[in-house]
Amino acid sequence: MSMEVTVKEIAVTARTAGQQMARIPTAQKDGALIAIADRLQKKAEDIFFANRIDLKQARSNGLSAPMIDRLTVTDATIDSMANGLREVAALGDPVGAVTDSWRRPNGLEVSRVRIPLGVIGIIYESRPNVTVDAAGLCLKAGNAVILRGGSEAIHSNRVLADLIATSLAASGLPEKAVQIVPITDRAAINLLLEQERFIDLIIPRGGEGLIRFVVEHSKIPVLKHYKGVCHVYVDRGADLSMAAEICLNAKVQRPGVCNAMETLLVHQNEAESFLPEMGQRFKDAGVTIKGCAKTRKLISWASEAKDADWPAEYLDLILAVRVVGDMDQAMEHIAAHGSNHTEVIVTRDYARARRFVREVDASAVMVNASTRFNDGGQLGLGAEIGISTTKLHAYGPMGLNELTATKFVVFGEGQVRTA
Amino acid sequence: MSMEVTVKEIAVTARTAGQQMARIPTAQKDGALIAIADRLQKKAEDIFFANRIDLKQARSNGLSAPMIDRLTVTDATIDSMANGLREVAALGDPVGAVTDSWRRPNGLEVSRVRIPLGVIGIIYESRPNVTVDAAGLCLKAGNAVILRGGSEAIHSNRVLADLIATSLAASGLPEKAVQIVPITDRAAINLLLEQERFIDLIIPRGGEGLIRFVVEHSKIPVLKHYKGVCHVYVDRGADLSMAAEICLNAKVQRPGVCNAMETLLVHQNEAESFLPEMGQRFKDAGVTIKGCAKTRKLISWASEAKDADWPAEYLDLILAVRVVGDMDQAMEHIAAHGSNHTEVIVTRDYARARRFVREVDASAVMVNASTRFNDGGQLGLGAEIGISTTKLHAYGPMGLNELTATKFVVFGEGQVRTA
Repeated sequence: MSMEVTVKEIAVTARTAGQQMARIPTAQKDGALIAIADRLQKKAEDIFFANRIDLKQARSNGLSAPMIDRLTVTDATIDSMANGLREVAALGDPVGAVTDSWRRPNGLEVSRVRIPLGVIGIIYESRPNVTVDAAGLCLKAGNAVILRGGSEAIHSNRVLADLIATSLAASGLPEKAVQIVPITDRAAINLLLEQERFIDLIIPRGGEGLIRFVVEHSKIPVLKHYKGVCHVYVDRGADLSMAAEICLNAKVQRPGVCNAMETLLVHQNEAESFLPEMGQRFKDAGVTIKGCAKTRKLISWASEAKDADWPAEYLDLILAVRVVGDMDQAMEHIAAHGSNHTEVIVTRDYARARRFVREVDASAVMVNASTRFNDGGQLGLGAEIGISTTKLHAYGPMGLNELTATKFVVFGEGQVRTA
Repeated sequence: MSMEVTVKEIAVTARTAGQQMARIPTAQKDGALIAIADRLQKKAEDIFFANRIDLKQARSNGLSAPMIDRLTVTDATIDSMANGLREVAALGDPVGAVTDSWRRPNGLEVSRVRIPLGVIGIIYESRPNVTVDAAGLCLKAGNAVILRGGSEAIHSNRVLADLIATSLAASGLPEKAVQIVPITDRAAINLLLEQERFIDLIIPRGGEGLIRFVVEHSKIPVLKHYKGVCHVYVDRGADLSMAAEICLNAKVQRPGVCNAMETLLVHQNEAESFLPEMGQRFKDAGVTIKGCAKTRKLISWASEAKDADWPAEYLDLILAVRVVGDMDQAMEHIAAHGSNHTEVIVTRDYARARRFVREVDASAVMVNASTRFNDGGQLGLGAEIGISTTKLHAYGPMGLNELTATKFVVFGEGQVRTA
C-alpha cells in the first residue's frame, strides 16, 4: 500500500471507531483501560524486546544521552504507564455530563451536554509512554486517537499499539480506536495533517521545531504551546522568605519542564534585601544567573543578560533576573517577553494581587505559589494531555473535559416558533 | 500604501486595541454600545446616502433581487441594528465570570475565569447590518474585531465603521477596536487570513463557497458551518397533530435559513395516517415535495427524490420526504446525510427519545420541538454571532461566552511543589 492509502485508511477507520466510541458506556471504557494496564505489565518482556531494538538503533545513530534516556522503557516506565491508566479509569466520565441547563419562557428545557470531540491526532517525539498516556485519556473521553510517535521509538510504539488493540478488542471496544501511524517517513505527518474530514484535532507534543512544523502544515485545528517563558515577580513589600521558597522551587525543582521559572523580576525596593541571599541559594543549587545591571551589582558573579535572554526558554539551571521599577514595568516585561504560559506574583498587597491576576495574559496566573503548579494533575484536572497557550477551545492544562465538546439538548412538548 | 501593508497595519493595531479592550470595565463597554446605537439613528441620513451608492452600483452590476434586498438599509434596518446593540448592552458581561472553582488538598484555590479571546475577524457577504451586530457582540466580550464585508456593501460599511469609531473614541474605548478592511479586492481576504500572530479567530458568515474559501486559505482557526441539512423524524406512535405543527413550522416559517427542515423522515407505521394530510398542508403552504417511492404512493403529486436530494440544503419551499423502517434507519439516514446542525425527533416513547438525544451527532438535538429553535436568541444565549457545526471551541449557536476563553487563576500562601 502507498503511504497515502495507509494514512487515509487509518483516518477513515478512526472516524468510524470514534463514532462507535461515543456510545460506549463508562464501565466498559474503564474496563478496557484496566485491561490495557494489566496487559502492559503481563507483556513487559515483549515491550523490552522491542525497546532494545530501538535503543540499539538509537545508539548506532548517535542519539544524545538525554534522548536515549527518554527513549528507554524500564520496569518503572511500565508501572507508571499502567498506573496512569488505572488512575484515568478511576476519574469521572466527562461524556454525558450536563454542563448547564435552563428553561425558556415557552417551556423548552435547554441543556448543554458533553460529547466526545471525535478523532484526535497526537504527534510526539521519543517518549514511548506518551503512546499509552495519550491513548488512555482520549479513550476515556470517548474519542478515537491516531498516534504518530518519533521514528526512533517505532518498534516500542508498535508493540504498545498492538497490546492496546488486543485489549480493546477483548473489552468489546473498537480495535481501531487507537492506531499508530507505522511509517517513519516525515511525509506521513504531512499526509495525516491533511485528513481534516476525518480528524478533529491535532495535539503536537515536543520541541518548538516539531510544533511549528505541525502548525505550518495542518489543515486540522491544532492545540499547542510553543514554549514556557514563566516569570515570578517579587512585589514591593512581599514576604521575602516566601518569595525565596517559591523562586527556588520554580527554578530548580525540575528545570527542564515548561512550567519552570525562566525569568525573575524583583521590585527595586526589595532587590537589596532579596537578591544577594537569593543569589547565593541559586548558586548553591547550581543555577547560573544572567542579570540586568542592577542585579549584577547585588549578585557579583552573575553574567550579563543580553536581549536574547529575556524571551529565552532555557529549560535548564539558568535564570534571567531583572530589577524593575514597579509592577507596571513587571507587567510590561511579561507582556513583551512572556509566552502566555504561567505568571506568578509574590505579594502582600490586595490591590496589586487583584490587578496582576486580572491584567496578566497567561493560561495560569498565580499569587504566592510556584509556577510549577501549572499542570493538570496539580490543578486538580486529574491528568493532562498537554498545556495550551492559545485561547481557542482550551487555555492552560487540557484534561478530560478539554477532549470533549458540548451539544445542545432541547426537550419540548410541541413548541413551534412564531417569530 | 500597498494592500499588504494596509492589512498588516489593521491586524497589528487590532491586537493592541484588543489588549486595551480586555481591561475596559463593563459599564464603559455598555456605554459605548449605547453611544453607537444613538449615533446610528442620529446619522441615518449618512448611512442612507452611502447605501444608495452601493445600491446603484449593485443594480448596474445586475445583482439579483434577493441580493439587493439584503443590501438595502431602511429605517427599520437602522432601528434593528440600534436596538440589537442596546440589547447586547443589557446582557451580562462574560468577562471576569468565574466558571468553576475549587480548593486543592494543599490549600491552593483554583478558579477558571473568563477572558476575551483577543482579535476576531468576521468575513461576510452583503448584509451591512452584520457590521454592527458582530461589532457589538465582539466589543461586549472585550475583543477587537476586524470586519471584511462584501465589496457590494463597501460604501455602507465604511460609513458604519466611521460612526462606530467616532462613538468608541467618544466613550474612551480604543478607536481601532472595530476596523473594516477597506479593500474590495478578494486578495485582501487572503492577506487577512495570514495574520495568525495578530488575529485569534475567524468567523465567516455567508454561503458555502465563501466558507470553503476561508477554511482553505486560513492560517487562523475558523469557526464555521457549511450548511444546515436539518431533519425531523416522526416516530412510531408520535402525536401526529403535534408532528404536523412542528413539521409545518420547521419548513415554512422561514424556509431560507439554516435551521429550517430540509428532510422529513416518517416511521412506516405512521406514514399512511400522517403523510396524505401533511402533504396537503405543505401543498397549501406552497411546498414542493420530493419523496421516496413509499412517500409518492401517499402523496401522489410529489416528485421523485434523487440521491442528490438527501444531502441537499434547499433553503426554499422544497422538502425531501422519506419513509423509514424504524428509528435506527432514521438515525443512519441522519448520520449519512445530516450536517451536524439540528435534528428533531417527534415521539411519545421515553427510551427512543433518550437514545435519539444521546446518539445523534448534531449541535442541537431536540425532542418535540421545531428545528427553528436552534438559534442563540431562541435558546436563551441572548444573541448569536453564528452557529458552529464543528466541535472545537463551540458547537451550535455562539453567544457572548463563545467569544471568550478561560484562564486559570490560582491563589496560594507560599505553596511549592514537592513532586
